[in-house]
Parts: sequence; structure tokens; C-alpha cells
Amino acid sequence: MLHKHRSSGAAAVKVRAAPAAQRIEAALQRALSLGEGPEGPPLLAAAARHAVFPGGARIRPQLCLAVAGACGEPHPALADAAAAAIELLHCASLVHDDLPCFDDAATRRGVPSVHSAFGERIAVLTGDALIVLAFQALAEAVEPITIALLAPLINILGRCVGGPSGIVAGQAWECEPRVSLAAYHRAKTGSLFAACTEAGALAAAADPAPWRHFGLCLGEAYQVADDVRDVVATAQALGKPAGRDRDLHRPSSASELGLGGAIEYFDRLVVRSIAAIPECDGAPLLRALVRAESERLVPQVSVRDLALAA
Amino acid sequence: MLHKHRSSGAAAVKVRAAPAAQRIEAALQRALSLGEGPEGPPLLAAAARHAVFPGGARIRPQLCLAVAGACGEPHPALADAAAAAIELLHCASLVHDDLPCFDDAATRRGVPSVHSAFGERIAVLTGDALIVLAFQALAEAVEPITIALLAPLINILGRCVGGPSGIVAGQAWECEPRVSLAAYHRAKTGSLFAACTEAGALAAAADPAPWRHFGLCLGEAYQVADDVRDVVATAQALGKPAGRDRDLHRPSSASELGLGGAIEYFDRLVVRSIAAIPECDGAPLLRALVRAESERLVPQVSVRDLALAA
Repeated sequence: MLHKHRSSGAAAVKVRAAPAAQRIEAALQRALSLGEGPEGPPLLAAAARHAVFPGGARIRPQLCLAVAGACGEPHPALADAAAAAIELLHCASLVHDDLPCFDDAATRRGVPSVHSAFGERIAVLTGDALIVLAFQALAEAVEPITIALLAPLINILGRCVGGPSGIVAGQAWECEPRVSLAAYHRAKTGSLFAACTEAGALAAAADPAPWRHFGLCLGEAYQVADDVRDVVATAQALGKPAGRDRDLHRPSSASELGLGGAIEYFDRLVVRSIAAIPECDGAPLLRALVRAESERLVPQVSVRDLALAA
Repeated sequence: MLHKHRSSGAAAVKVRAAPAAQRIEAALQRALSLGEGPEGPPLLAAAARHAVFPGGARIRPQLCLAVAGACGEPHPALADAAAAAIELLHCASLVHDDLPCFDDAATRRGVPSVHSAFGERIAVLTGDALIVLAFQALAEAVEPITIALLAPLINILGRCVGGPSGIVAGQAWECEPRVSLAAYHRAKTGSLFAACTEAGALAAAADPAPWRHFGLCLGEAYQVADDVRDVVATAQALGKPAGRDRDLHRPSSASELGLGGAIEYFDRLVVRSIAAIPECDGAPLLRALVRAESERLVPQVSVRDLALAA
């Protein structure tokens, strides 16, 4: 049943996806150029571009723009900057997550990871530089009419990226002897999805609070899908090594619930996310986006086979 | 002659130093608490405090508050936040600079470095978390009357910390096959001192532009002093391993100019810094602060002996 919904959603979303994708790439280009200049060290600049381009699905900035659009989007430049800032923070976390002391991943998105291509030192610095650029991009985009939105936007991003429950905290849970799977997933993935929905609403001068729960649900679904894909997908399909969660003994819903249980949990989270979308003019489009993404995230053949087998 | 100036300056500064030091520690405590909570991972929170407390001389936030004070300081809460943000960014750079892939320093400020005490993974994340906290601290301190100052403050911090010529870029120059010593020092140290003077002025609603040159001169002097101390001081006096620049083949004014030449260059930079202080009510106090610091930075006996021997 869910599969049918998913397919119709994918078609509906494509109409809007192209311009949003262009806006995101343009905003990322503008943000990266803030950190570049002829006087700068060439390797750092090259590594920052390697970390950001070409991107993956850009699901986080897409979500941010989709929520801003659903809220009427009176300030598109600020929404673009918020979307770019979130993607830069995501890319920074991937660069540091791939480091030898964490996942020691040689590839990312099908190409050498930043530390593989540029060395460990440049990889540490690239992550740092991307975090700084995220906040710079927001500040650069502020206009007199949106000046009051900057501080709350930074607060949202800070809370969703830093401690006690942002993505940095999520990664830090991997260093603790005990961790609750829900707290770990919420911090490592859910928090940045909440940043997308909250910042998207706020960049449109709407109240971000009703949008938080939607982002958290969606983020948890995304993390469960990632756990599932880590088990069932090949390295080629992932663009990074498969089976890393198991190899690194990381908390994973696939190992905790079993593969079939994790897939069922994913489907429940997708339904819950769709129900959490606040009523607004853009709600139908958002629901379609979520359904389309749910189809993309979990490999279809494997899912169906495994669900039947369970 | 310079030595006499320095001694009188030290006495003059002490009158004001105590309250500034208290303000800085209180602002850092407030900033760190933004990233803490019972739901957070304990090691990350402990490591962040380990990286920030107890501090060194807090010369950067002292400079920021001194410039804000010299400009009349109409918004002390914002000046405190700017000072704390700069110190957090400085601490973040120290944590990442100490990592095994960079300096591999086992100690810092006389105690184990963050990666020695908490492991490499937590050290990477601690640096990330402190960068995020710096921007959060600024956003939290903004009031309706200072709302227009937030974006330019973030731009100053971003430029002085990220690429192409902030401290992250400075550290990245260590990974390049060729580097100009002036560009390296300006990025690695001068830039953050420029952030202190520019942000201090801006937090007082003054034009930051005239204050940039003073910060850059002072930063260069500080870096040269650091190079000198790396050669002449013992590890005990430094609180970190001595002779690291030489061991790591890092660009150093002591190796490029010789020790005597580096000390002469330092003295010229101190004079140049003092001359670069814009005229304002607080200029005499700032001059005294610079003289007092110059005395503290370069070990007195070694300096005099070496100067006589040269």
C-alpha cells in the first residue's frame, strides 16, 4: 500500500524539484566563495569544494526550502542561505565522520573521502571551515527586513548541531560506553532534520515550533533507513563502504530490531512523519516529498523480499 | 628602554584586569552551559570544559574587552559575548592543533591535551562543538537595541576564523609545500587578534575598520613571541612541549630570522602595534596593556642575555 503512495508522490515532486535544486547549488556556491580568495591556501579551498560538490540528494536543504515554501516564503534569499547552511553543516559532519579515528571511510558519494584525497590534517580543517561558513552564509543573507530572524536562526542551527543533543553530540554518543538508540538517532540525525523544518519555517517568518516534531520524525526515519541500507546495500550503491555500523559496533536499529523489524519501524516512522506535517497550503506537496523520499531511501527489491520473508 | 615602559604598563593594567577577567570567565561559563544538558553525552561536555577551563592569559578576550571599553562600551553584554566567542574559537583551534595528525601534543597549559585525556574522536568533536558555541553565544547575547550588530559581528568572526585568511587557513598553510611566513602568521594568529579589536569596537557600536591594523600588528608580534618561546623556554614554562616548531619543520620566525633577529623583530612589532592604536579616550590604557603583555610574552632573562650577546 505504501508503495503506491510513494510512486504517485515521486511524480508530483519532480515538478518543483528542479528549481529548488538549482537554488541550493547556487546558494552553496555563494557560501563557499565567502571562504575563498587568491591569498588563501589552495588545498583547503579544493578540499572544501570536494566535500560539498557534487552533492548527494541534498535532502536536508530540499526539506528546508520545501517547508519555507509551504509557509509562503516571503524571504527566499534567507531560505536559500538557511538551506545552504544546513547542508554545509551536514557536509562538515560527514568529513569528520569519515576521519580515520571515526569511520575511517576511504570513499564517500562514490569518490575518495576528503581525508583520502587531501590528508587527515586538511580533512579536520575542512570540517572546521565548513562549520564557520554555515554561519557566515546566514549572516551574509540577512537584509534589513529579516534582521530580527538572524539570532533565532543561529540558535536553531546551534542547538541542532552542537551539544547537548545536536549532531556533534550524536557522534559523541559513539564514544560512550552506554547509549540509548533513540537518543543517539535523535541527536545524530533527527536534530539536523529538525533544523531543516524549523529553520525553513523561521526563514519564512513563521513560528518554527509546530514544525519541530515533523523534522524529528523524518530524521529518525532517515537514520533507520540508513541503518537498513548499511546492511542490505552494496558499497557501490551506497558510494561508501557497506556494513560499517556492524564492523564498528555502532548502535544500529538493524542490529537492535533485526532487518525486518527495522524496515517495519521505518514504515511506521514515515506514516508518523506525514501525520506530523502542520496544516498549511503546502502540506500536500510536503506529504508527496516525504513519500517520494521514503521510496528512494530503502532499496525497493530488498525491502519487499525481506518484508515477505519476515 | 622598552623594558621600563613595560614595567610601568603592567602596574597600570592590573587595576582594570580583575573585573575584565571575571567578566570573561562568566561569559565563557554562560556559553558552555548552552551546549550542556542532562540529555547530552557526558564525555563531550567534560572535554569542552577541559579545553576552556582553566584558561591561559585570556589575552584575546582581554583585548576585545579593552577595545570595547576604549570605545565607550555601551553594550557590555554583547562585548562579553564577543570576547567569549573569540576565546572559544581560539580554544577550538588549540584542541585541533594538538591532535595527533597536527602537533601531537600530549600536554596543553600544563595538563593533558584534550585528545590525551579524552581520546582523538572526542577531541575532534570538542573543537567542532566550541566553534558552534561561539556563534550561539553571540546570538544569545543580542538584544533588540543591538540586533543590527549581529550580522557584522558574525562576518568579522567568520573572516578571521575561516578561509581564505583566518586561523583555519593559517593552519592549512602548514599542509602546503610553500608558504610565505608573513601570510602564515597573519592568518594563523594575526587574524584572530584582528577579530578581537574589530569585534570589540563593533560590539561598542563603533566603526571596526580603524581597529583592524592594530589587531594584525599585535597578532604578528604575539606569533613571533610564540616562535621565540618555542625555542628558548622549557616545556614546563610553556605548559606544552617545547621545540615543536623545529621538530615539525613548521614555518617559524626564529628559524627564519635567527633567535636574535626574531626578538628584534618582536620589539619592532610591539612599537608598531602601539602606534596603530586609534586615538580615543581609552588609548593610554590600551598602550599600557600592550606593553605589559610584551613583557609577559618573551621570557625576560633570555631576551636580555640574547640581546646582549647579539
